[in-house]
Amino acid sequence: MEHIEIKRLLVNYKTLEEFENFREYGAQELSMKEDLRANIIEGDSESPFYGIYYGKKLVARMSLYRIDKKYDVYFNPPQDYYELWKLEVLQPYQGKGLGMALVNFAKSFNLPVKTNARQRSDDFWTKMGFNALTYHEQRDRGENPYVWFPEGVTEQE
Amino acid sequence: MEHIEIKRLLVNYKTLEEFENFREYGAQELSMKEDLRANIIEGDSESPFYGIYYGKKLVARMSLYRIDKKYDVYFNPPQDYYELWKLEVLQPYQGKGLGMALVNFAKSFNLPVKTNARQRSDDFWTKMGFNALTYHEQRDRGENPYVWFPEGVTEQE
Repeated sequence: MEHIEIKRLLVNYKTLEEFENFREYGAQELSMKEDLRANIIEGDSESPFYGIYYGKKLVARMSLYRIDKKYDVYFNPPQDYYELWKLEVLQPYQGKGLGMALVNFAKSFNLPVKTNARQRSDDFWTKMGFNALTYHEQRDRGENPYVWFPEGVTEQE
Repeated sequence: MEHIEIKRLLVNYKTLEEFENFREYGAQELSMKEDLRANIIEGDSESPFYGIYYGKKLVARMSLYRIDKKYDVYFNPPQDYYELWKLEVLQPYQGKGLGMALVNFAKSFNLPVKTNARQRSDDFWTKMGFNALTYHEQRDRGENPYVWFPEGVTEQE
């Protein structure tokens, strides 16, 4: 894969069918399908997902959701940030830097990025410049919050 | 395994060492270890985890965290509920009903139970009497919320 292109994914039946190849498929995807069927959302409207295609096949994706400053419980000073979840590369396409490319894209907006480092992926996130936050039971409830700080941003006390 | 006994897990170095056998090990466990080292928590104090031992080996666990009514965004009427996470049975001990026993224990308090059904575990949760909630992007942020309703409890609008 010479050039990795990251695309904003559009909500349509084709995309939703491709999503079924990913392990983390659930309520979010099903609700998009229902909304599409009920014409609550238009076909080809923007989704919170970004992905990488290999030919016509979606082989990697992440959800990147911008959270408003008023909900920020992680950063100092409080600010808009991105919540990154469902980062996943289909098994045969792993080890080609696709996950890294998606995470770098998330960082490119120069706003903080927060994720939940799951299943001992800590090494990956550290390599990507992320830091573990101090764990707060009430706030984190079993999550493993890892964040990327742009310059001048620190952890909220 | 004739009789399955569920134990509240106590925070001590032995338990924390056993936790390392589970895939979902992260900030929560590390912060318990630090608090223990720094004498912020006493040895053998209660943790939010419950588990099942096979002999002296911890082979299954879940975190069960009681959430106060004032934070309830899921249930009608709003009430205290349990958030269940990190349900995990070590691979060689799967298929013996240990996961089911833990979930039944969580239901035994007769308060609602909420979990995040991950990696297509929907069938398991449905079998356990859980229901998918309507997905709300702002509230659920990629989660796959499944809940168990005691009698008289419904989904919050």
